[in-house]
Amino acid sequence: MWLVIVYLLFGDAQLVLSTVSDRYENVINERDTLFKKEIDMMLGSDIVLSDSEEKVNEIIIELKHRELDTGLLEPGQFNVSKHFFEYKETIKETNLFKIIKRMPKGAILHAHDIAILSPDYVLGLTYSEKLYVCFEEDDVRFLFSKDIPKDTCGTRWQLLRDARFSSGNVEKFDAELKKYFTIVIDNPEEVYTDINIVWSIFQDYFVRFSGIISYKPVWEKYFYDALKALRDDNIMYLEIRSTLPQLYDLEGNVFDSLATAQSYKDVSDKFVIDYPDFYGVKLIYSPLRLVDYSTVKSYIEIAKNIDNKIPGFLAGFDLVGQEDLGAPIKYFLPQLVEAGKYLKFFFHAGETNWNGMSPDENIFDAIVLGTQRIGHGFALAKHPVLIEEIKKRDIAIEVNVISNAVLGLVKDVRNHPLSSYLAQNLPVVLSCDDPGAWEADPLSHDFYVTFVGVANRHADLKLLKKLALNSLYYSTLKDKDKIIHEFEIRWIRFIDSILKGNY
Amino acid sequence: MWLVIVYLLFGDAQLVLSTVSDRYENVINERDTLFKKEIDMMLGSDIVLSDSEEKVNEIIIELKHRELDTGLLEPGQFNVSKHFFEYKETIKETNLFKIIKRMPKGAILHAHDIAILSPDYVLGLTYSEKLYVCFEEDDVRFLFSKDIPKDTCGTRWQLLRDARFSSGNVEKFDAELKKYFTIVIDNPEEVYTDINIVWSIFQDYFVRFSGIISYKPVWEKYFYDALKALRDDNIMYLEIRSTLPQLYDLEGNVFDSLATAQSYKDVSDKFVIDYPDFYGVKLIYSPLRLVDYSTVKSYIEIAKNIDNKIPGFLAGFDLVGQEDLGAPIKYFLPQLVEAGKYLKFFFHAGETNWNGMSPDENIFDAIVLGTQRIGHGFALAKHPVLIEEIKKRDIAIEVNVISNAVLGLVKDVRNHPLSSYLAQNLPVVLSCDDPGAWEADPLSHDFYVTFVGVANRHADLKLLKKLALNSLYYSTLKDKDKIIHEFEIRWIRFIDSILKGNY
Repeated sequence: MWLVIVYLLFGDAQLVLSTVSDRYENVINERDTLFKKEIDMMLGSDIVLSDSEEKVNEIIIELKHRELDTGLLEPGQFNVSKHFFEYKETIKETNLFKIIKRMPKGAILHAHDIAILSPDYVLGLTYSEKLYVCFEEDDVRFLFSKDIPKDTCGTRWQLLRDARFSSGNVEKFDAELKKYFTIVIDNPEEVYTDINIVWSIFQDYFVRFSGIISYKPVWEKYFYDALKALRDDNIMYLEIRSTLPQLYDLEGNVFDSLATAQSYKDVSDKFVIDYPDFYGVKLIYSPLRLVDYSTVKSYIEIAKNIDNKIPGFLAGFDLVGQEDLGAPIKYFLPQLVEAGKYLKFFFHAGETNWNGMSPDENIFDAIVLGTQRIGHGFALAKHPVLIEEIKKRDIAIEVNVISNAVLGLVKDVRNHPLSSYLAQNLPVVLSCDDPGAWEADPLSHDFYVTFVGVANRHADLKLLKKLALNSLYYSTLKDKDKIIHEFEIRWIRFIDSILKGNY
Repeated sequence: MWLVIVYLLFGDAQLVLSTVSDRYENVINERDTLFKKEIDMMLGSDIVLSDSEEKVNEIIIELKHRELDTGLLEPGQFNVSKHFFEYKETIKETNLFKIIKRMPKGAILHAHDIAILSPDYVLGLTYSEKLYVCFEEDDVRFLFSKDIPKDTCGTRWQLLRDARFSSGNVEKFDAELKKYFTIVIDNPEEVYTDINIVWSIFQDYFVRFSGIISYKPVWEKYFYDALKALRDDNIMYLEIRSTLPQLYDLEGNVFDSLATAQSYKDVSDKFVIDYPDFYGVKLIYSPLRLVDYSTVKSYIEIAKNIDNKIPGFLAGFDLVGQEDLGAPIKYFLPQLVEAGKYLKFFFHAGETNWNGMSPDENIFDAIVLGTQRIGHGFALAKHPVLIEEIKKRDIAIEVNVISNAVLGLVKDVRNHPLSSYLAQNLPVVLSCDDPGAWEADPLSHDFYVTFVGVANRHADLKLLKKLALNSLYYSTLKDKDKIIHEFEIRWIRFIDSILKGNY
């Protein structure tokens, strides 16, 4: 009798236990399956790491996890969710940044030509001979000239050299001057309160030093030194966007856009001779979007002309400027459909917070016009139909995380839609937009911020390598095998050097 | 001869023209197709509007577009991308808000019991008899008592009535007191600088007035009045989350969680008798997550006990508190798998900015545990595999936009991932979380903010109706046909009244 009871009791108990334990096992298995599916889906999951790469992976994962685990407990300590201006220097001191800095990062496919170098570099340019300055209320203009410029000036034109030395305090003078060459300030959250305000200051920044930069010798020097900075940041190739402004010289010559393009071609050729390990430059002609039909038509003629006169140099065509306020792509559909017969497109589209408005609907137009890549695509996350479309057509998204944060689209980069693009294995290329304007390194800061602040905690060296490879794969280079082969050689060298502790 | 030339010229021209125009037509068609696909996919697209609804739709669309179009040009004027505290009163004056206020909104499926009513209401409670107060440095405690409480107090316990009248300035006294019953402040961006800070203040808010609210007569009055506020906001049904704190009375009785649940049941029964157009309440028992295994086990026993003793009242079980710092669901997997045999789950999961960390990976566990709905799911956008899973299993996401903004997850609601959930037609239920804590109406503010700030510009009355219907459809109510039928009746009445200009 007791035996029966004992049997029943324990038999039942065992039954219950085994049922629970089966259920538990099912739940665990299901969780593991979903988790594995997620890991296998994310961008970079197709990369297979060698033993050496696995060792480097352990190093960087440990560094990354330390940042994240501290951040989880003390979010105020998590650098990359703060404003970029606050942490851009701090992170440079980390080992993870140093490793990323040394890492071959492939190409830069989305950058604007005159915002690559730092304000310190631009300040250095103001030491050039024959540079005149006109200080006006809250602003400044520059001009290279043989004699005192005849352009109007609210105060007076003087040689910058004279102004500097008569200031009595060169250090202070230079510090004040430097402020004009950066949008970095101490209190961005108080000053840059909405996107139009920061864009307006950002645009002033470009206008302001146009007098310096569009002086042909400076233009060429800046570009040469920009390429040097890219090479130092372990970039091997560039597709540069330019409005191709008119350049000038001391003789009163004014050069048209074709000449400006030619000047880029010449500099890039010279650079490749000087540094044969650099794979050169292509041009995306990207004039301003806030214009009328006939201007766009003339832009297109300029592009065609460049393509004829400098064969092989032009990658294609784009329109630039704040999308929220500029003309949407659809205004120029007839002109652009026609132009599509001759030109490839690399449209900025969806660099906006809006949803169902002209700037995010630019993505529709970019896609149907057959754009090769999409510049930014910040708003793409709101358009699942377009996500399917870019997957189908294999259109790369040129994502610029720091730019989007600095220019007011997203406060905490953890909310950047790139996190979902990476998770979905979308064709992403990481880029930098205008690193000089916010004092970032050409590409290392964007890689660091993406790796630590945007990507999944489990994303590792495979993601970094994939992002670098994507920048080559989605470039317009014809012979990709060659550059990818060279990339692999450099990558192995990088892995070995990290394993030797060189960072 | 000339004729031939003319023919060739115009013939060619025509050919080119017609080619371009074919290309152009293709591009336009493709654009239209993609656009239509997007419109047809978004949440609410399956709703068919009657003629009357179409007319109301025109009214609300015009009001919404006016806001958006102004915002595009002057983002500083766009209310809902600012901090909620800044615009919560302003928007109440708009016709769009007034219409949404009158709109039947279905049910509230995600709200915490003691954060529904405004600080003004709580201030009113402090006029109750026998309420003692202890003012300490920067904080305050309350207790109902027959005599001076014996609980320790850094200063002294006094009747609140006495403190108020001896203050010499009742208005000032009340204004100071009210600050304890809200997390609304003038300078949130300076004070609430990270998520832990705002959460800590938010949690203090709950602790602080526990002495008032857990006095049984007040507890029941608060809940009755909360139901009234819901009804006034055109809500017809509620699933309330509660930690079921111990209640007390003047006789020294302390009531356990079961008694607290019973008290909710009694109040809700009384309310439904008083207001038969209200469809009642179910309870989601939601104790704090920052506990150990054995405590979770005892929670589960409490839940089972409630379900036995008050049949039909318990909807299910959840764990609450800041996910970033609390124990993740996976810690309690064995206990919860076992509990899943008896209880339905409604887990908070992914109320976080992190990616690949414990709080967002709570979504994995919630899903494999068979959760009925997901509370928040803010991080779901980063987990496409889980998005597919919740679609497959038809698990609703209880989204609380304003809560996520106020509690530090997202600054500009245009970046809230709900925009992509709506675009993808995910099973979304809109809710409010703790509207009293940030002085929002029970659900109208969340509907307004979602409609104007989160949803696509082309989203219209169909979305609003669908969101309201979803809250009924994804409720645990058994007889959904009945409540949906009643909803439809009220909806028609609403449409008619708006057409008569009653807003």
